[in-house]
Amino acid sequence: MPREHKLQIIPLGGLGEIGKNMTVIRYDNQMLLVDAGLAFPEDEMLGIDIVIPDYSYVIENKESLLGILVTHGHEDHIGALPYLLRDLDVPIFATRLTLGLIQSKLKESNLNNIKATVVQPRDVVKLGVFRVEFIRVNHSIPDAVGLAVHTPLGTVIHTGDFKLDHTPVSGETLDIHKFAELGDKGVLCLMSDSTNVERPGFTMSESRVGQTFDEAFRNAKERIILASFASNVHRIQQAITAAYKTNRKVAVVGRSMVNVVTIANELGYLDIPEDTLVDIEEVLSLPGSRACILTTGSQGEPMSALTRMAMNDHRRVEIQPGDTVIISANPIPGNEKSVARTIDHLFKQGAYVIYEAISGMHVSGHGSQEELKLMLNMTRPRYFIPVHGEYRMLIKHAELAEQLGMARENIFVAENGSIVEFTRSGASLGGKVTAGKVLIDGLGVGDVGNIVLRDRKQLSQDGILIVVMTLSRSTGAILAGPDVVTRGFVYVRESESMLEEAKEKVRQTMLRCRENKITEWAILKSQVRDALSRHFYEKTRRRPMILPIIQEIE
Amino acid sequence: MPREHKLQIIPLGGLGEIGKNMTVIRYDNQMLLVDAGLAFPEDEMLGIDIVIPDYSYVIENKESLLGILVTHGHEDHIGALPYLLRDLDVPIFATRLTLGLIQSKLKESNLNNIKATVVQPRDVVKLGVFRVEFIRVNHSIPDAVGLAVHTPLGTVIHTGDFKLDHTPVSGETLDIHKFAELGDKGVLCLMSDSTNVERPGFTMSESRVGQTFDEAFRNAKERIILASFASNVHRIQQAITAAYKTNRKVAVVGRSMVNVVTIANELGYLDIPEDTLVDIEEVLSLPGSRACILTTGSQGEPMSALTRMAMNDHRRVEIQPGDTVIISANPIPGNEKSVARTIDHLFKQGAYVIYEAISGMHVSGHGSQEELKLMLNMTRPRYFIPVHGEYRMLIKHAELAEQLGMARENIFVAENGSIVEFTRSGASLGGKVTAGKVLIDGLGVGDVGNIVLRDRKQLSQDGILIVVMTLSRSTGAILAGPDVVTRGFVYVRESESMLEEAKEKVRQTMLRCRENKITEWAILKSQVRDALSRHFYEKTRRRPMILPIIQEIE
Repeated sequence: MPREHKLQIIPLGGLGEIGKNMTVIRYDNQMLLVDAGLAFPEDEMLGIDIVIPDYSYVIENKESLLGILVTHGHEDHIGALPYLLRDLDVPIFATRLTLGLIQSKLKESNLNNIKATVVQPRDVVKLGVFRVEFIRVNHSIPDAVGLAVHTPLGTVIHTGDFKLDHTPVSGETLDIHKFAELGDKGVLCLMSDSTNVERPGFTMSESRVGQTFDEAFRNAKERIILASFASNVHRIQQAITAAYKTNRKVAVVGRSMVNVVTIANELGYLDIPEDTLVDIEEVLSLPGSRACILTTGSQGEPMSALTRMAMNDHRRVEIQPGDTVIISANPIPGNEKSVARTIDHLFKQGAYVIYEAISGMHVSGHGSQEELKLMLNMTRPRYFIPVHGEYRMLIKHAELAEQLGMARENIFVAENGSIVEFTRSGASLGGKVTAGKVLIDGLGVGDVGNIVLRDRKQLSQDGILIVVMTLSRSTGAILAGPDVVTRGFVYVRESESMLEEAKEKVRQTMLRCRENKITEWAILKSQVRDALSRHFYEKTRRRPMILPIIQEIE
Repeated sequence: MPREHKLQIIPLGGLGEIGKNMTVIRYDNQMLLVDAGLAFPEDEMLGIDIVIPDYSYVIENKESLLGILVTHGHEDHIGALPYLLRDLDVPIFATRLTLGLIQSKLKESNLNNIKATVVQPRDVVKLGVFRVEFIRVNHSIPDAVGLAVHTPLGTVIHTGDFKLDHTPVSGETLDIHKFAELGDKGVLCLMSDSTNVERPGFTMSESRVGQTFDEAFRNAKERIILASFASNVHRIQQAITAAYKTNRKVAVVGRSMVNVVTIANELGYLDIPEDTLVDIEEVLSLPGSRACILTTGSQGEPMSALTRMAMNDHRRVEIQPGDTVIISANPIPGNEKSVARTIDHLFKQGAYVIYEAISGMHVSGHGSQEELKLMLNMTRPRYFIPVHGEYRMLIKHAELAEQLGMARENIFVAENGSIVEFTRSGASLGGKVTAGKVLIDGLGVGDVGNIVLRDRKQLSQDGILIVVMTLSRSTGAILAGPDVVTRGFVYVRESESMLEEAKEKVRQTMLRCRENKITEWAILKSQVRDALSRHFYEKTRRRPMILPIIQEIE
C-alpha cells in the first residue's frame, strides 16, 4: 500500500494569544508559511523589546518551504520577518502596500535582496502542489487579504484579520463572492480570526469614523491634533479629507506615521488634495483654525509624539489651550493606564480631548459575532480551526460554530505547535512540534531566558545588595572589607546604621565559619547570604538580591 | 477690624487619581479629616506595596484635629489609617460595618486602643464648631455614608462614594430626602464622586446582579465558583441567596473574603439561611450540583485563591471540567491582562467561565452621569468641587455642573494640596499645602524615593554587572580581579567570551589610568564604567547598570 498523503496545519504563533501570528501549511514534503509576526512583551518580561515565534520547525524544514504568504502589513503579521529572513532565502508573496511596509522594515535590518512577488486579490499563485488564491478582506489597513490554499486533499481558507465593511473608505468590500464560491465548491478547513468573538453584532464601518471626524473638525475653533495607529491608512485618509473640507493644512509628526504616510502616498493608497500636506513648520505658523497635526501615540507609548506633547516635552509641538486632541484608537489591553495618563496630561495643558470612552472616534478592524457567523456560513467548511485569539476567544469561536450546526468533533481548538492533520479518511488533532516564544532584547535573540527574567524580577522588586571581601589565601582572614554596596534597596543615607550592622553580621558569620574550618567559598557565601537575608527581612520586610563576592590574595 | 473667619477645604488625596482619598475641612483653628485611604502602586513604582497620602499637613496641625470621619470601609478610604494612627491620637467616627473593618485592620497593625464612635445615618455629631450629619448613600459596600458638615460659614456636603439604587439589596436607598432638605436650606459647597462621570445614564441596581446569579445558578449542572470583591457584602449576600434557592451549600475561600464574611456576619449584615454556610471540606464532599464556593481573585491577583485555582496551584480546590466560574467584577484599569489570563487558564482547566465582557454579572458602585446630575440638583450648592477621580474626570464633572447652570467661577477643579477657601465674601482657590505620595515598601514608609525607583527600573530592564578589583595601596597595581559578576543581564554561559573581553577592557583602562597618574577612585570607577558601558552596548544594545567596586590593601 502506498504511503497515505497528509495535509498538516501547524500554527506556530497566534493561538492562545494576540500577536506573533505564524502558520505552517504542509502537504507531504511541501510547505507554505502564512505570516511571520511579532508580539509585544508581557508585563513580566522585564526589559524585553519584542517577542517572536520559535520557528525552529521552519528552519529544520527549510528545504521543504516554498514561500511565505503575508496577509497584511501589521506588525503582528510581518514583525518576525527580519529575523526569519536572516536564516532563510525564500520568496514572499504579498499585496503591494503590505510588501512596501515589509521592504521598509527589512531595509532597517539591512536585508535588501529578498525575493518578493506582488500579488493582487483574486490572483492565483502556483507553489509546488499548492494553488494559492488571494482574497480581499476589510481590515484596519488597506490591501489585507485572506487566502484559499488549494491542496490535493481540499481547500484550506485562512481569513487573515478581517471585518466586513459595506462602506469601506477604499470602496473595496471583502470579496463575498469569492468566499461564497469557494464554499459552494467545498472547503476542507477554515481558519478564522477570533479577535472580536466576544462582541455581539456587527463591527461598524470605518467610514462612520469619517463622519465623526467631519463633525469634530467643523466644531473645533483651534488646532486639531489627531493621534491614530500609523498603519491605519484609511483613518489617515479620512483625517486628511476632514482637514481639507474645513480648510486646514495637515502636518504629520512621529517617525512611524511619517514612514507609513510616505510609503502609502508613493504607492497611491492616499488621495491627498494639493497643498494640503505640508511640513510642521508651516502648520505651526498658521492660525489654529487652519491647522491639523496627525501624529502617533494613541497608546500612550512613553516615547511617542503625543505623549511627549502631553508631557510638554515635544521638540516642535506645544499643546495650547483650545487645541482639540482626538485619540482615534482604543487602548490595546495593557495600555489603558498609560492612555488615561496621557489624556489627563493633555487636559492639564488646556487641550480639549476627545477619546474613546465618550465618542465614536474609532472602530475595530476585526469582525464581530455576526461577521464571524457569516464567514462560517459562506465558506461552509468541513473542519474549523479558530485562530488569532486568546484561549477563551478560540473557545467562544468554537461555540459559535457549534451554534451554526458544526459538529464538535470537526472543530479543533489548537495550540501553538499543534498539528492538525488531514487525510482522505478524516482529520485529527495530534502530535506537536516545537513552538514557543523567543525573546528579543537589544541585539540578543533568545539569550534572555527564565533565569535572567527571574533575576530582573527580583532586582526590580527589592534591588540588590553586594558584599565584597578580600580574604587571605593562607589564613582565610579578611584583608579588606566587608564592604556593602546597594542599589534599588534603600536610601543609603537613611540606612547607615542598618548597613553597618550588616557588615558586623558578615564579620561574625565569617568568624564562625573560620572556627568551624569552613573554607569552601560556596558555603561561605551561602552562610553570608542567609545571615544578611534574615537581617534585612527583619528590619525591612524586603528581600533584596544578596550577592557576596570574595576575592583572595596571598 | 477683627480677623475674618475662614473655612478651608484641602484635599490631600483622591484628586487627579483614583485612590488614597483624604480631605481636610478646616474652620479657623479647628479641623476635621474625611477618610484616610491608600492607593495601589503605579506600574513604574517597582517593588512598592501600597501608596498613602503625604499627610504631613495633618501631623503639623494635629492640635487642631477634632476627629476623623470615615465614609465607608473600602481600602481607598481606610487603608492609610494604620499609618496615620501611629502618629495621631484622635477619635474616629464611622458606621458599624465601616468601623468593624477598620478595627480588624488596625488589629493587624497592633493598634488596639483607638477612640471610635459608631454612628448611624441621620446621626448628628458635634465636633468643636462643626456639626456633622451622616447621610446614607448606596455603594458597593453596606453602610456607606455621605457627610453634611455644618460650619458657621455654611454647609459642606461630601458625598463619599455613591450611587442611587432604587432597589438596593439591603432595602435602604440613598437618603434623597436629607440631600433635598439640605439643598432646600442652602448648601455652601458640594464635593461629589467623579468616578463614573464618563458614563451616560444611570448605574444599574445591585439587585440586577442577583437576578443574573439566580439564572446562572439554576443553569449550572455542576459546581459554582464565584469570585468577587471581598468587601462587596451585598454581592456575597446575593450569591448566598442564589445558592440557597438552588439547594447548594456555600464555602468561603480566600483570606480577605473569610475575614469580611466573618465581620459582616457577626455584625448582622448578612442573612445566611441555617446550614448554608459550611466549611470547604464539606462543600468538596458534595455532588457538584449542590456546591458553591465564594472566593477572591476577581482581579487576577497572582496570590489570590481564584488565580491559584486557575493555575492548578490551590491547596484545596481543583477546577473540574463542568465547573461554572463566575467572575462578578470588572477589571480595575491596569488589571485587564491578568484577569484575561486567569479566565484563559480556567477555560483550559475545563471550566465554563462567565465574565463581564459577555454578561451582566457586575454593576458599578458609583453613580453615572444622571445620578451625578441628580446630586447636583438636589443639593443646589453655591460652590462645587468634583472629587474622587482622575483629572479628566474632574474636568468632565465640572462640565456637567456647568451644563446644569452652575457658573464656571463657582466650580473648583482642585489638586491634592490645593486650598479652597471660603469667607463671608466668597470663595477662591489659592495656596497649597504639602501633599503627595508616600510609598510603602515592606516596613519602610517613604524610604523608597526617586533614586531607588530609578535604580530598580534600570535593574529591571537590563540587569546589573559588577566589577570587583583589589588594588595595592602603595602601587595602585591590581592584586586580585578584575572579577565580573552579572545578574539579569545575559546568560553567563553563553556570554563567556564577551565577559572575558570585558575584563581585558578593565585591565587596559586601569593601566591607562596608572600611566596618566589617575589614582582617585571616583575617576577610576567612572572610566571603567564608561569603557564597559560602550563595550556592552556595542555587543548587545543593552545598558546594564555597571558597578565597579574597588578594595585596597597594603
